Amino acid sequence: MLALAGWPMGFEFSFLADPRESTRCISGLGNTVTFANGMSAEEIYKALGQPDVITIEREAVDVPLLKELKAFCPVYPDPDIAWTIQNRHREKSLVHELGLATSPWSRIQGEESLPDAIEAIGGLPVVIKSTEDGYDGHNQWVLDTPDQIAAFESDRKLILKGESKHKHSLLEWIVEKKISFEREISVIGARNVDGDITSYIPGENVHQNGILHTTIVPAPKLSETIRAKAENYISTLLEQTGYAGVLAVECFVVGDDLLINELAPRVHNSGHWTMDGADTSQFENHVRAIANLPLGSTQQYGVAGMHNLLGKTLSDDTTPPTALVKPKQFLHWYGKTSRPGRKIGHVNVLASSQEELAEKLESVRKQWFDA
Amino acid sequence: MLALAGWPMGFEFSFLADPRESTRCISGLGNTVTFANGMSAEEIYKALGQPDVITIEREAVDVPLLKELKAFCPVYPDPDIAWTIQNRHREKSLVHELGLATSPWSRIQGEESLPDAIEAIGGLPVVIKSTEDGYDGHNQWVLDTPDQIAAFESDRKLILKGESKHKHSLLEWIVEKKISFEREISVIGARNVDGDITSYIPGENVHQNGILHTTIVPAPKLSETIRAKAENYISTLLEQTGYAGVLAVECFVVGDDLLINELAPRVHNSGHWTMDGADTSQFENHVRAIANLPLGSTQQYGVAGMHNLLGKTLSDDTTPPTALVKPKQFLHWYGKTSRPGRKIGHVNVLASSQEELAEKLESVRKQWFDA
Repeated sequence: MLALAGWPMGFEFSFLADPRESTRCISGLGNTVTFANGMSAEEIYKALGQPDVITIEREAVDVPLLKELKAFCPVYPDPDIAWTIQNRHREKSLVHELGLATSPWSRIQGEESLPDAIEAIGGLPVVIKSTEDGYDGHNQWVLDTPDQIAAFESDRKLILKGESKHKHSLLEWIVEKKISFEREISVIGARNVDGDITSYIPGENVHQNGILHTTIVPAPKLSETIRAKAENYISTLLEQTGYAGVLAVECFVVGDDLLINELAPRVHNSGHWTMDGADTSQFENHVRAIANLPLGSTQQYGVAGMHNLLGKTLSDDTTPPTALVKPKQFLHWYGKTSRPGRKIGHVNVLASSQEELAEKLESVRKQWFDA
Repeated sequence: MLALAGWPMGFEFSFLADPRESTRCISGLGNTVTFANGMSAEEIYKALGQPDVITIEREAVDVPLLKELKAFCPVYPDPDIAWTIQNRHREKSLVHELGLATSPWSRIQGEESLPDAIEAIGGLPVVIKSTEDGYDGHNQWVLDTPDQIAAFESDRKLILKGESKHKHSLLEWIVEKKISFEREISVIGARNVDGDITSYIPGENVHQNGILHTTIVPAPKLSETIRAKAENYISTLLEQTGYAGVLAVECFVVGDDLLINELAPRVHNSGHWTMDGADTSQFENHVRAIANLPLGSTQQYGVAGMHNLLGKTLSDDTTPPTALVKPKQFLHWYGKTSRPGRKIGHVNVLASSQEELAEKLESVRKQWFDA
């Protein structure tokens, strides 16, 4: 989607892929280099065609490699910020240092005491998350009652002994105060190399089983206080970290409090609505930002929504579900093979009221899951 | 631009190119088949990968070949309508038969009398156009005064003897009453295979040296009468010809009269603004139409404009002019080699008033021509 957004401006793209990664979805959009063990940064840079700039579009990136690549061309966003965000403890520490609100948390490493950590943040309920390797709700434990502590502890024993099926590259967790939030909103912003900043109006996210299900924009009935806080959060983060590119911030709304839950140093699923619902898409703005061009208008009209299409079965059939194409409904199909729960596309919807939008999103859901 | 618009929906593309045609601008977007003399329709169909549908994106197409291809898959729009529009006499006859307004005209073939033809439409001034091979103002003669008749007649002698440098595959011309029009507007519409019809709000075109320079949307201060006529023209043409795809109609505004000047059976330069200024671009709507999907919303917000980037010199340098990228300004660069007057890109501009738009388009012009 980045390449499709940058192509009209005359930019050329090349891609670095993992050895076992399918590159079907980018096939034809540019030269693809498959990373091989032992390849030096210089070899990669040359194989990519000596690009003017390198960027990232996921969080699990090889930070040391990216740092080496900086000797050859700029890497945006900086590998340091990607490194910070890769670890929930470092991520929350950054938010805290910048004076922005987040839920109270403490960290436990190895066999450190969980009860102490829980007490340090005022007791149950808490959510425990591995500091790394968490994605779409993996490696998380919700502890509402004391007996649920035991469940985590027995999991922890297995993990420490290396007997857990869950991937844990680091043996540490954050223990986070569980927030009874009213809703989650996302704010997507961009900063170009020169420091110009822009952001989109916040959207409201609905998750199912830890996976983003829908985003609606503008987040309905958002108070001016919350909206101002969201704008302050994104601009502070972009400015204070000297960021270049698109950054996404997921926050919990609790009354007039806005607590940062997660950062994503990249174009983000909750910003996919911008492809059809804003003057400039987050993808074009990311390309503009890292190419140090003026950022595009983020203006949005009416109401917009995004519905993820999650794989239902294991299948190699990549036929697009064109029945989802409607007058104010736009299909984005990634051409990926399907497996249950995998994001294989999304649908953007435009409407003139929140009620109309809700109906349309529900009909997308029905059509997708009943098909 | 068609392929970039269809890609997100999961469609795959292949291209048929002329032997000496540069395919740089589509490089990577799909398999390109270069037409070789003697290739049969079946061979072409197979080389293209047995597509579900074939479409066209220019007017100078090989109609007999397209008709043969219909034996293998649908061709939209139908080769018959492309054939009709390829010849100005057939084109104007179609418009006339459908009861739509056009400027009075007569046809002369070979050595037929020009004075008779001029008299048949009420005398000077007239515009003479070759019935075929006319593009961007080529092969046209404006006759305001009787002495200009002689100039055409001496050109005609050379053409009939085969000594003219201008291409004339047919030795016939239409003699058209010259219209003192106030302005030219374009109306772009689409019809899908099932017969659903939609159209964009008309835009106003400014030409320079016969080449489209800018389009602004909505055409300022268009009367309700003219707007209703424009909508009637496009829907009549789409419906009565059983058209599938995007059709563009260029019209002259003369008071409350709207005279059809030209049809284009394809996505059109005067609809390029839709890429950034409407809910759905003309390119996506063309793909939707020929794939028989519901057409996309043509809604447009504020005012929008398009400024063509014409080549200034002969050059192989395809570096994009990224200085033209601005917050409400979008660069579309085709990656073509430059030659004077060649369309090598365009810039779309969004604004909140016609005054602001005019200023922005003027600054694009200045920036492009002064660079």
